[in-house]
Amino acid sequence: MRTLKLYFLTNNKHKYSEILDIFKRVKTQIRIEMYSYPNTKLEIQAENLEEIVKFAVKYARRKGLDNFFIEDSGLFIEALKGFPGPFSSYVFKTIGIPGILRLLENETNRKAFFKSVIGLCLNGKTYIFTGVVKGRISEIPRGKYGFGFDPIFIPNGFSKTFAEMTLKEKNTVSHRSRAAKKMLNFLQNFLRGDVMEENKNTF
Amino acid sequence: MRTLKLYFLTNNKHKYSEILDIFKRVKTQIRIEMYSYPNTKLEIQAENLEEIVKFAVKYARRKGLDNFFIEDSGLFIEALKGFPGPFSSYVFKTIGIPGILRLLENETNRKAFFKSVIGLCLNGKTYIFTGVVKGRISEIPRGKYGFGFDPIFIPNGFSKTFAEMTLKEKNTVSHRSRAAKKMLNFLQNFLRGDVMEENKNTF
Repeated sequence: MRTLKLYFLTNNKHKYSEILDIFKRVKTQIRIEMYSYPNTKLEIQAENLEEIVKFAVKYARRKGLDNFFIEDSGLFIEALKGFPGPFSSYVFKTIGIPGILRLLENETNRKAFFKSVIGLCLNGKTYIFTGVVKGRISEIPRGKYGFGFDPIFIPNGFSKTFAEMTLKEKNTVSHRSRAAKKMLNFLQNFLRGDVMEENKNTF
Repeated sequence: MRTLKLYFLTNNKHKYSEILDIFKRVKTQIRIEMYSYPNTKLEIQAENLEEIVKFAVKYARRKGLDNFFIEDSGLFIEALKGFPGPFSSYVFKTIGIPGILRLLENETNRKAFFKSVIGLCLNGKTYIFTGVVKGRISEIPRGKYGFGFDPIFIPNGFSKTFAEMTLKEKNTVSHRSRAAKKMLNFLQNFLRGDVMEENKNTF
């Protein structure tokens, strides 16, 4: 099985560590490398993560890149009509966790989900993988791990917030890990297919 | 003086009416036409309106358009670190005016400004015009005119919100009118220059 080197276009080290952990846990010939990129140039203002990611992949392709992936994610809160959604990182930097909790004061519907969309560009073709985790917004922030809104998100089936989980625990359930596992699975099949192609040519 | 036809790339009829009013009030050979365009493809997620507008102009240029302009604007609230800023229309559609007022509950610093940035593409060249209006966020929404966060923005020197002003009143002070007047002024000079060029050629 030949090796494959993929660039992860991101400026977020947390995201990189999480996805790297997924790839490290299996025996694979795929190597991931972080590639810092001015995100502002990549992300469009769409209300749909798939659209943002597809555009970003196209944009990076036009810059001559290949064999890379991009990930975008958001926290979608039901009572806030999906806010902050695709704008989660900007909202985190401005009104932050206190702002979100204030907007949800006296709100009994605390349902929310995190969604991750990965856009992979492989040999010039684009593939999209998504991962979702449902949960609820806690009353107060808890935990020290992770990043962003992790201290106020409790995934269904758990009593801990994402920020109370280690990276490995978070990766058993998180939206990002779900999308990354789908991509990993695809890539492994792809590499196996590639080997068969090569074998065919050899015999 | 020859005529000039410019497309205003927007999906927002309010913005179109406001800018049209600026151009109608003077004797000019410039005609403005609204051109609906999928904004989601144009607007990047930057925290700086100029960057968003420059990218949008470039994007539209690449699609083969010329002699057009784009406008982007945002409400920047000091106590919220500039939130909602360039994401004002998304924030308006989700948490809306009640959300903003909630985030400012018990907040004595109600300072805010509206900023408008116009990107004009004329004969393949890009020109940027900006307009700012300082003011404060009202305690309750008031008024029925305008759009977006107009019902909670009181410009300095006024006691009315933007939504309590008619379009003409708003245009005497608004961020968008300030940017549009700069563009109008530039275009009139440009057209006058053009006539002189033609005269030179004729004589």
